[in-house]
Amino acid sequence: MSDSESDIVFRSDMTVQLVRSAAQDGDVVFAARVSTQGEKTLAKAGEDASDRDKGLIRFLMRDRHGSPFEHNSFTFYVEAPIFVFREFMRHRMASYNEESGRYRKMRPVFYVPGTDRNLQQIGKPGAYTFEPGTAEQHAIVEESVRTQSTSAYRAYLEMLEAGVAREVARTVLPLNLYSSMYVTVNARSMMNFLSLRTQHEDSTFPSFPQREIEMVAEQMEQHFAEKMPLTHAAFQDGGRVAP
Amino acid sequence: MSDSESDIVFRSDMTVQLVRSAAQDGDVVFAARVSTQGEKTLAKAGEDASDRDKGLIRFLMRDRHGSPFEHNSFTFYVEAPIFVFREFMRHRMASYNEESGRYRKMRPVFYVPGTDRNLQQIGKPGAYTFEPGTAEQHAIVEESVRTQSTSAYRAYLEMLEAGVAREVARTVLPLNLYSSMYVTVNARSMMNFLSLRTQHEDSTFPSFPQREIEMVAEQMEQHFAEKMPLTHAAFQDGGRVAP
Amino acid sequence: MSDSESDIVFRSDMTVQLVRSAAQDGDVVFAARVSTQGEKTLAKAGEDASDRDKGLIRFLMRDRHGSPFEHNSFTFYVEAPIFVFREFMRHRMASYNEESGRYRKMRPVFYVPGTDRNLQQIGKPGAYTFEPGTAEQHAIVEESVRTQSTSAYRAYLEMLEAGVAREVARTVLPLNLYSSMYVTVNARSMMNFLSLRTQHEDSTFPSFPQREIEMVAEQMEQHFAEKMPLTHAAFQDGGRVAP
Amino acid sequence: MSDSESDIVFRSDMTVQLVRSAAQDGDVVFAARVSTQGEKTLAKAGEDASDRDKGLIRFLMRDRHGSPFEHNSFTFYVEAPIFVFREFMRHRMASYNEESGRYRKMRPVFYVPGTDRNLQQIGKPGAYTFEPGTAEQHAIVEESVRTQSTSAYRAYLEMLEAGVAREVARTVLPLNLYSSMYVTVNARSMMNFLSLRTQHEDSTFPSFPQREIEMVAEQMEQHFAEKMPLTHAAFQDGGRVAP
Repeated sequence: MSDSESDIVFRSDMTVQLVRSAAQDGDVVFAARVSTQGEKTLAKAGEDASDRDKGLIRFLMRDRHGSPFEHNSFTFYVEAPIFVFREFMRHRMASYNEESGRYRKMRPVFYVPGTDRNLQQIGKPGAYTFEPGTAEQHAIVEESVRTQSTSAYRAYLEMLEAGVAREVARTVLPLNLYSSMYVTVNARSMMNFLSLRTQHEDSTFPSFPQREIEMVAEQMEQHFAEKMPLTHAAFQDGGRVAP
Repeated sequence: MSDSESDIVFRSDMTVQLVRSAAQDGDVVFAARVSTQGEKTLAKAGEDASDRDKGLIRFLMRDRHGSPFEHNSFTFYVEAPIFVFREFMRHRMASYNEESGRYRKMRPVFYVPGTDRNLQQIGKPGAYTFEPGTAEQHAIVEESVRTQSTSAYRAYLEMLEAGVAREVARTVLPLNLYSSMYVTVNARSMMNFLSLRTQHEDSTFPSFPQREIEMVAEQMEQHFAEKMPLTHAAFQDGGRVAP
Repeated sequence: MSDSESDIVFRSDMTVQLVRSAAQDGDVVFAARVSTQGEKTLAKAGEDASDRDKGLIRFLMRDRHGSPFEHNSFTFYVEAPIFVFREFMRHRMASYNEESGRYRKMRPVFYVPGTDRNLQQIGKPGAYTFEPGTAEQHAIVEESVRTQSTSAYRAYLEMLEAGVAREVARTVLPLNLYSSMYVTVNARSMMNFLSLRTQHEDSTFPSFPQREIEMVAEQMEQHFAEKMPLTHAAFQDGGRVAP
Repeated sequence: MSDSESDIVFRSDMTVQLVRSAAQDGDVVFAARVSTQGEKTLAKAGEDASDRDKGLIRFLMRDRHGSPFEHNSFTFYVEAPIFVFREFMRHRMASYNEESGRYRKMRPVFYVPGTDRNLQQIGKPGAYTFEPGTAEQHAIVEESVRTQSTSAYRAYLEMLEAGVAREVARTVLPLNLYSSMYVTVNARSMMNFLSLRTQHEDSTFPSFPQREIEMVAEQMEQHFAEKMPLTHAAFQDGGRVAP
């Protein structure tokens, strides 16, 4: 609770940890089989998927039988800047609990674009491409972000010290401030998220996410691919369109 | 697959099995704490809840902070008559996969009210009460249900044998036919379901569920109370209104 | 309220009436423009869409910007058999109010397949095709449906006359009984519904709906096409996949 | 598009305009009546509600029959600071389209607390009360907000002028920047929103919203009360708990 101006941290990465999951390919298979067999045949943990299972999962994905992909859950702990959370929470098929600037003093952790972040936007809405940007552009961004973040956090601290309510003082903090949250989703909802928040221009349905939310999405996708490899492969091969 | 008319089964009970869950009181506590602490402090399985946790859960319930109750999941396998599933699936915050009469031949299992099922409805909509019913009423229900179910299933079989598509033949089957499904919910959604589908006249918000869906709800509630005892107690003490 | 066995009606059609709507292509355009212009520029009723509008709507559909298609609403009154409503209500992004067999005596109106309803199912799940069916198949379906419906309704009436509660008596009624409901959806949700409940084999994502729900969907689509012609055209040309 | 530093605007109010609605008490009544009458009897625009209607609406609210309150829609145009939109969009039963900092240059409009904004927070989470605050506190808030906003917007402009992508430059802008959006909700969803985002300590379920989102909610409530007076009165008298 003794965060001060001098403790300011600048980061260029995102934290995504899978803190809890109940998810495996077998769940999809057996949820689907209740339709055709009407029996309780849920997968045992660790049970191997057969070739027949692979075919069934691909069929479900192709024919957009979405509900079998819902009987599972992933809970992630995410640290990312507020402008990323703003986009994230537009996805309504998910459960969120975020750190509250009304209930706690925000820590001085701010996002600054890394040197590999493309800074120059070219083209028109819906068809933007990005170029790396010049050294000068990188310098001005680095300078601006650091100066503004530091100045804003100092003002925040001054208001708190003057006895101003946290919920008022926080309003001067910039969108690159880090926040943290738990988010719980099922595989169907996650595929929808990945479909829109990772880039895949070769798809029937292209997407052009902001790089920073894509950095979060890519980490989520790794966990997804690990826990449900057949489902992930079918999603990938089917053009990354969620059922 | 050789179900025939002579195999008809009549049941008066409901099957509710908890086939998978990732749910404990600690999840509520730690999801809530991210708001005030902004740290990853998810419960370890088996960790005991302190008195402070109990207070926090009651506070969240009372002030209707609903989202901390969403980071968990219960998957049930349910067998119940179609008229129960019709009511069940009106609850949209849940994931369903049900046996399909288009994809499989329905088995001859039918619901008949048990001898303890009240048959006489008294009063007006919104304030019905039920009386046990006379012996004659029980006799006519028993007789009607058995005769109609048997006759309908015979007609169903005849159409199938004549090569009629299952999706057409099934339309003569009655609403007391058993079906089966998986349903996945989180605790918040389940509390909403229980609040509306179990009777609790002493609440600010009374409810008058049909007895058969209440039989399903009561079994679900037992599993809920076992997995999340503090959350269940706070729900119960708070008038059974979901946050 | 004097429905009796002799009043039984058999129907082969579905009723879909658009009872209320607040929906036009202009709403999509102007909801989208808030993103790029940040101004309130909602369409005036009757205002014509320009070529630029057409392009924008196609762009939104292709890039799956779904939210601009949500700021509108359609309320339909639908009469259809219960087995159709069972499929309909699996669509969770909609609002439903259906006639209640607990609160009112159900009227004796039953669905019987028309002579143009294909009765023979060929192939495997996910790739069924239908053939018209033989004269004998049509005869047995007609006969079975009429006999079972009549017999079930008679049993229903007898139970009601004996003082048995409606909610118990109704359980012998078959799935081809007509019910009625209001359903309210927005265009995005409707496109998802149409995408799954009308047949379109040439799409990337084929669908194989049961004919009877397709009969409802086709009528809904006519209303949609009339109220939002540019949106409907973009949906049609884009492979009938909802954004 | 020539916004410059010298054009900075500071506001202390919120804009809420009802741009489109299809909503009246009669819709609730007639949606409910389909349950008991199974007939299409939707209200004509302007039709008066009878005393019987009033009773029905109160009954529906008390017994939490929520679905009849969903067959209507309100579309609002809202201008408010980003920290308000962050809370607003946690409400998932709604449709949003917001101005995009990726697609357009944000205008220099910032929120500064008015002189009547309480600045001092007293008590513990869940039971905060607010005091007006001292003259010094008001001075420091005014000064900090103006200085930080001006400085941040200047940095934003400099980055844009240097050719940095809008989506990167915007990250230095503070949470008190105004944005604009369309939001579409139905009455049930709006009552849930009002229940949580307006203060009503005398309720069974107290709420403690941040003042700025309450300023938006209060304006929405006025429109709601005007369009659906009986529904609003029943909501108010029933303790402001949404069904």
